[in-house]
Amino acid sequence: MTDPDLDVAVLGAGLAGLRAAELLVDAGLSVRVFEARDRVGGRTLSEDWHGARVDLGGQWLGPAQTRVAALAARLKIDTFATHVAGDRLVDLDGALTRERSAGRWPTLSQIAEKLGKRYVDALAARVPVDDPRGAPDAARLDATALAQWRDRMLPHDGLRQLFDVSVKTVFGAEAHSLSVLYFLWYLQTGGGYGAHVDVTGGAQERRFVAGAQALSLGLAAKLGARVVTGSPVQALDHDATGVWVTSATGRVRARAAVCAMPPGLVAKLAVTPGLPTSRARTLARMPMGATVKVIARYERTFWRERGLSGEAVSGAGPVSYCVDNSSADGQHAMLLGFVVGRDAVDWSALDAATQRARVLAQFGRWFGDEATRPMAFRAHDWADDAWAGGCPVSNPAPGVLTAEGPRLAEPVGRIFWAGTETATVWTGYLEGALESAERASGEVLTCLGARDAPR
Amino acid sequence: MTDPDLDVAVLGAGLAGLRAAELLVDAGLSVRVFEARDRVGGRTLSEDWHGARVDLGGQWLGPAQTRVAALAARLKIDTFATHVAGDRLVDLDGALTRERSAGRWPTLSQIAEKLGKRYVDALAARVPVDDPRGAPDAARLDATALAQWRDRMLPHDGLRQLFDVSVKTVFGAEAHSLSVLYFLWYLQTGGGYGAHVDVTGGAQERRFVAGAQALSLGLAAKLGARVVTGSPVQALDHDATGVWVTSATGRVRARAAVCAMPPGLVAKLAVTPGLPTSRARTLARMPMGATVKVIARYERTFWRERGLSGEAVSGAGPVSYCVDNSSADGQHAMLLGFVVGRDAVDWSALDAATQRARVLAQFGRWFGDEATRPMAFRAHDWADDAWAGGCPVSNPAPGVLTAEGPRLAEPVGRIFWAGTETATVWTGYLEGALESAERASGEVLTCLGARDAPR
Repeated sequence: MTDPDLDVAVLGAGLAGLRAAELLVDAGLSVRVFEARDRVGGRTLSEDWHGARVDLGGQWLGPAQTRVAALAARLKIDTFATHVAGDRLVDLDGALTRERSAGRWPTLSQIAEKLGKRYVDALAARVPVDDPRGAPDAARLDATALAQWRDRMLPHDGLRQLFDVSVKTVFGAEAHSLSVLYFLWYLQTGGGYGAHVDVTGGAQERRFVAGAQALSLGLAAKLGARVVTGSPVQALDHDATGVWVTSATGRVRARAAVCAMPPGLVAKLAVTPGLPTSRARTLARMPMGATVKVIARYERTFWRERGLSGEAVSGAGPVSYCVDNSSADGQHAMLLGFVVGRDAVDWSALDAATQRARVLAQFGRWFGDEATRPMAFRAHDWADDAWAGGCPVSNPAPGVLTAEGPRLAEPVGRIFWAGTETATVWTGYLEGALESAERASGEVLTCLGARDAPR
Repeated sequence: MTDPDLDVAVLGAGLAGLRAAELLVDAGLSVRVFEARDRVGGRTLSEDWHGARVDLGGQWLGPAQTRVAALAARLKIDTFATHVAGDRLVDLDGALTRERSAGRWPTLSQIAEKLGKRYVDALAARVPVDDPRGAPDAARLDATALAQWRDRMLPHDGLRQLFDVSVKTVFGAEAHSLSVLYFLWYLQTGGGYGAHVDVTGGAQERRFVAGAQALSLGLAAKLGARVVTGSPVQALDHDATGVWVTSATGRVRARAAVCAMPPGLVAKLAVTPGLPTSRARTLARMPMGATVKVIARYERTFWRERGLSGEAVSGAGPVSYCVDNSSADGQHAMLLGFVVGRDAVDWSALDAATQRARVLAQFGRWFGDEATRPMAFRAHDWADDAWAGGCPVSNPAPGVLTAEGPRLAEPVGRIFWAGTETATVWTGYLEGALESAERASGEVLTCLGARDAPR
C-alpha cells in the first residue's frame, strides 16, 4: 500500500471541480485540483473588453437556479437583470416581425404557446430526471429524432423555425441530432421549456456584474495553492484503495479522484484499468454542442431608443439569437449574438472578415445602419478550445439515453464524476455543475468514511 | 532542421497502415509502422479454435472487392464460397418463415425487392462517392434520420424489420442514429444495397481459408522489423518539414506520417499543432458501430441435413443475423451470429452465461435442439477492444456528412490519413482499407517528391 499524497485529486477546475474541491476541503480532506488550462472556470470565461466585463462563455442565471444564486451571494458577486424592455424582432423567411417581448420566447400565436410550451412541458413532466428510461414509451422517444417529432407536432412552418432556433441555442445542436427523449429529459431537469428558453422567469433572466467566471475565480481564490493550472492530467490509474494521477507536474497518489471534465475529454483520458465498455461507448456518443458567441460594442444603446429590446430571433444564419448585452448601467452598449449548431460548424470555414460582415449585416437589418458600425467586434468559437471542444453541453446521440441511462455519474472504483453533464438538475448549466459537485463530493466523503470528519 | 530518422511513420498496423507501408517501401522510402496492440490486423483477428480457423473480426470478400482479391492472390491466401445452399429462415414477430435463399438478402415479395433494393440503389446512385454533399437534396437527406425515412418508404412492418436488421448488421448501428444521406453514400461506395447485404454477389460471398487477418500477417511479414507492435503512439508533433512521433519506444523524426487509425482513436491522439476545429468536431461525431460476433461449434452441420443453409435473419435479439461459418470442407461445423446495434450495447450488461443461453435459445429455435448443445461457444465484443472501440465502422451522426464532407482524408500538414473510414470505395470494408492505403501513400510520395524514386 502506498501512502497517499492527498485525499482527493480533482480533475478540472471548472465550476463543478472547484465546488467539489471546496466541499471536500470544508469536510477536512486534503485536495488538489488539476487544471489543463492556464485559467480556471471551464466553459465560463469573462474578460475586460473596451472598458466592460464581457462573458465569452456561460453568463446567465435563472430564478430556479438556487445554487448559483447562493454561491454568487456568498462570493459577493452582484447580479443584474438581462435587458429585455422593448420590442423583440422575429426574422423568419425574410419577413421581420416586431412583437412585445416580456422576456418570453417568441410565440406566433396563442395556439403556438399552447402547443409549443404547455404540451411539451406536459410531456417533459413524464420523464424522471434521475432515470429517463422510466418515461412512458422511452425507447421509441429515444429512437425518434427531435426533427421528426417537430415536423409532426408543429403545424406551422414559422413555429418549426422558432422551435429549431430555440433548440439550437439551448443545445448548440440541430434537432436532427437529438432524440425526443433527451430533449424532454433536458427540459425537465430545468423545469420545462420556458425555464430554458425564456429570459424573464427563465435561465437567461440575470447576469453577473463581474462575469460568470467570477464564481470559479472566487472558489479558486479560496482553494489557493490547491489549484494547479497548466497541468493537464495525462493518465489516471486506479485500484481498490485509490488513484495515481499523472500530470506534467508529476505523479501523485490520492485516495479518490473527482473527474470534473466534459465527457469528450473524459473519453480521451488514459484511464487504467479502462472505463467499462458501456461508459466508453456512451462517452463516444456525446458530442459537445457547437456555439460561437459574437459581441459587438457600440457607443450607445441606439436600439433601445427605437423601442427595441435588442432581442432578435432568426430562422436564417449566422446569428440565430441576439440579445442586449450591455453593462448593468447601460453605459457599455453591446449586442450579443449566438451562432449555433450547423451555422457554427460552417462558421469555422469563413475568414474573420466574412464572419464579421455577415453578423453585422444581420444586426443592421434588425437594428439599423448604426448596428453595422460597431466600435469593436469579437467572436469566440468554443470549438477552438481543445479543453472544451464546444459549448454549451455534450448531447447524447439518439438511442444513447435508453441504452445507458444517465450513468455518467456512476463511480468507477475510486473515480467519482462531476460536471454539468452528470447532473440531474439543470444539466448543461452552471446550476447543474454545482449540483453535480454536491453529489460527487458526497459520494467521495461516504467512500472515504469522512462524512463526519472534523475540519 | 532535424535529420529525420526515417521517411514515413505509419500509425496503425491494420490492413490500411500495412498496405500503405508496403507501397511506400516499394517506392524506396524508409518506413516504420507503430502498432498499439501486440498484433497486427486491426479489425481483423483470426484464431485457431477447436481445430478450425475462425475470424473474430472482418472475414468476407465480395466479387467487386478487387484489391482484396489481388492481395489475397499475391499472398497465396485461398478463399472459398460462404455456404448458402439450402433454405434461409426469417424470424419476424414470432413467426418463422422458411424461404429459398440463393444467397440474397431476404425479401418478403417482389414488391419488397423493387422497393427495398432497386429504389434504394437508384437513390444511392445519385450520391457522388467523393463528395456526398453534391447529391440532390443533400442537406435534407443528411438531416433526416434513416429510421424516419424507412417508416415513410416501407409500407409493411415486416419489411421495416428486415431493413433494420440489414442496417444494423452492415453498420453496427441503429437506423435512428444514421442519416439517409450517409446510408445512401455508404451503399454507393460499394455499388448498391445488394452489394452490401447479399452473400452471393455481395460483400459476404467468400471467406479466407487462413482467416482475414492473414492479409495483414502477410504484409507484416514482408515489412519485417519495420513493424513495431506494442507501441501505441502517444503524441504526434508536426511542422512544415515533418513529424515527431512519440511512443513508448521513444521519439522519432519522420518526413511524413500516415495515420491509419480509426476516427475515434485519431480523436484521442495528442496532435500538436492541433487538428483543425472542423476535423476535431467530425471525429467527435463518428462513433464506432457496435458489433459482437458469437460462434458456436458443433460436431456436424446438422442444419444442412435438414435443408437449411444456416442463414437466419431475426427481428428479435440478441442475434440479428446468423450464417453458416463452417470450414471450407465442412468438417468443422460452426454457426456465426451477429449481435449488433442496440442489442450489442445491451449485451455488455449480461453475464456470460446469460449471453450464451440467449444466443443458443435462438439457434435452437431456428435449427433444432441440437443447436442448443454446441461443443464450444465464444463471443467477441469489439467494444471491449480499446484499440477498436467497436466494429465494423465509424458512422458519422446525422448532419456531419454535409457539414464536413468526406474530408477525413484531407492531409493536415505532413500528416496523411488512411483507414477504411477515409475511403470512397467500399468504405467500412477491407477493400476500403486498401483503397485508402493507395491514396494516402500516393499523397505521401507526391509530397516527398519521391514519386519516381529508385528502390
